[in-house]
Amino acid sequence: MKSCGVIVEYNPFHNGHKYHIEQARKKSQADVIVAVMSGNFLQRGEPAVIDKWLRAKEALSNGADLVIELPFAYAVQSADYFTRGGVKILQELKVDSLCFGTDSSKSVDYESFGRFHNENIDRINQKYREIKNNGSNYPQLMTQVYRELYPEWQLDFSSPNHILGMGYAKENAKYDQPMSLYSIQRVGNNYHDTKVSHKKFASATSIREKILSDQLENLEDLVPIKTCQDLELNPLASWENAWPYLKYQLTIQTVEELRNCYQMVEGLEYRLKEAALSSENFNEFIQKVKSKRYTWTRIQRLCTYVLLQVKQEDIEQVWENTCIRVLGFTDEGRNFLKNKKKEIACPMVTNINKKNESYLSLDIRAGLLYTMISKSDDHQDYYRAPIYLKEE
Amino acid sequence: MKSCGVIVEYNPFHNGHKYHIEQARKKSQADVIVAVMSGNFLQRGEPAVIDKWLRAKEALSNGADLVIELPFAYAVQSADYFTRGGVKILQELKVDSLCFGTDSSKSVDYESFGRFHNENIDRINQKYREIKNNGSNYPQLMTQVYRELYPEWQLDFSSPNHILGMGYAKENAKYDQPMSLYSIQRVGNNYHDTKVSHKKFASATSIREKILSDQLENLEDLVPIKTCQDLELNPLASWENAWPYLKYQLTIQTVEELRNCYQMVEGLEYRLKEAALSSENFNEFIQKVKSKRYTWTRIQRLCTYVLLQVKQEDIEQVWENTCIRVLGFTDEGRNFLKNKKKEIACPMVTNINKKNESYLSLDIRAGLLYTMISKSDDHQDYYRAPIYLKEE
Repeated sequence: MKSCGVIVEYNPFHNGHKYHIEQARKKSQADVIVAVMSGNFLQRGEPAVIDKWLRAKEALSNGADLVIELPFAYAVQSADYFTRGGVKILQELKVDSLCFGTDSSKSVDYESFGRFHNENIDRINQKYREIKNNGSNYPQLMTQVYRELYPEWQLDFSSPNHILGMGYAKENAKYDQPMSLYSIQRVGNNYHDTKVSHKKFASATSIREKILSDQLENLEDLVPIKTCQDLELNPLASWENAWPYLKYQLTIQTVEELRNCYQMVEGLEYRLKEAALSSENFNEFIQKVKSKRYTWTRIQRLCTYVLLQVKQEDIEQVWENTCIRVLGFTDEGRNFLKNKKKEIACPMVTNINKKNESYLSLDIRAGLLYTMISKSDDHQDYYRAPIYLKEE
Repeated sequence: MKSCGVIVEYNPFHNGHKYHIEQARKKSQADVIVAVMSGNFLQRGEPAVIDKWLRAKEALSNGADLVIELPFAYAVQSADYFTRGGVKILQELKVDSLCFGTDSSKSVDYESFGRFHNENIDRINQKYREIKNNGSNYPQLMTQVYRELYPEWQLDFSSPNHILGMGYAKENAKYDQPMSLYSIQRVGNNYHDTKVSHKKFASATSIREKILSDQLENLEDLVPIKTCQDLELNPLASWENAWPYLKYQLTIQTVEELRNCYQMVEGLEYRLKEAALSSENFNEFIQKVKSKRYTWTRIQRLCTYVLLQVKQEDIEQVWENTCIRVLGFTDEGRNFLKNKKKEIACPMVTNINKKNESYLSLDIRAGLLYTMISKSDDHQDYYRAPIYLKEE
């Protein structure tokens, strides 16, 4: 039973994601597609427009066989940790290959890159430390490191999916039995594009823009029918819904308390507190806080940590005790899990109970907050069993 | 220049309060009435319906000459600390007398009671400790203590204003130069009554009920015109407005974090967290949490501490460094302050600045939260100067 993994967010699931799964199956010749998906909060540090259960079902309805939740402690992170978590879970599940989209303008041999990077990690880290205080952000710094040390790779770290691809490659190369890597070129417009420019494919960013500005018409050209229905029938979450809670927390907590928050460094607590007091909405707030050094995404992630009162130890606890949280499966996915069960070393969670809740306390907290900001009544963790999408 | 103090909340200022000031002036023959008033949060642990500045101005327009804010650390407290703070501030200001309303059914010599209580405090405390775990609340316990030890006093601790009166008396008797005490019988209905039963006098509780249920008509019979206007023109605050923030905080914080909150004792953190998760509004929440032992008021106060993330040290800091925060004055009040200035040992604050803000950090925090829950744009602390109500 051959398996191929995809590491995804599906915010929301669109035609490009469906194409990705089809290509993954084709390239890898896999019988089973395993999707490791962010939960209710995403890599960019924002709530998903619709919850993880709806998104998991969209994926299962469109080619995925098994959906596993990427824990908050890996998902709401920079590319390095996001990719580490995704690869770790696929490795725990003994998945054979990994397929990802890339937006690199050049063809890259990711497997070779991963090995090369790990072999030269000391020199790369040293160079990185030398230049890290020059005011650039992480992608800029890594581009500079490679340009100076290994110009032959002609690497750039500016395209988000390419960065993730390199992250997967680096993480994957650390394992004794690395997965085969398949990269596919993205079709349609780029990740950052907010305008829809292709008839059938559009970035999730541009689709979210459409949704949140209430332009739901023509959406059926860009997303599968299931996604369309979900978006029409469910309350949508956004940072603006969460803003009152963030403003409240930044107002009430002292700078000393804020400093205990994960990733609150370099006096950012003062900057955030001051901006919160003088801002009327989230957009205004972020505009005041972001800079070249502190990107929009980094600030959003930090705000998510504040909102959820995430501490360093909450994150480390998950890193040390990662578990496999099953969100849903098809018959194929179910068989896959059954077959692999004995080989999987880390805990597997299908239903949350007193015994396993401690593994998932951060995700549970995120789910409770998510229901508050999405104004949905649906339970996110307790009382939920995995989705079982039977073949008709 | 003779002065008389009143310790008040004015939530909102009504005809009974006006009568109280008139009687205070008459009985004490004072030239100046000094009102020590709770700020934006009140003794019962709830936000004031309108902010402290509006309420201070109502008082100045209706007979008070000077309004001083009773700091949060004294105001949002049981009667013992509330009265301690009020008396302390009046003593700091060298006020000659104190006048308070009482709802005791019997005539009480408060000055004698205060001295007697302090002289026998060890025996009273010992008795209190003996019985304190019998499940009764504080007023019930104190009634029992006196009934068993000193039945001749025939004291009961069930009428709220009488309890405050005894508190003032006890605190006042501790000072070398105690103030003269004047008690006046309340006119109209009782504190706890929620129905208006008298034509011109009604309890603040019954008036608040009217306001918050939008029955503003006939209010002009019960409150001065200034109060009427304030209530009509300003956004009103209530616990229901604050409920989303409380629910959020109780949801997100771990029980360990909640345990750091001031007055979070005896496992109440579990009780509060559980009730918050399953409640849709504040009323439903309180109904689930309150009990014979944990009264509505005590729970409300605790919730205010949670909402403001109050720690033991925040409270102690204010107790150790109490300052005189001037909210407003008439010409008489202004002269009084000028004359007393040299005698006043503790810091006096008229405008908040970098030098004095540390004395008031808890009140400032309370003010910031208050603007969020009252949805008012008015600054509460920074950028505010005392009200000066000139004689026309």
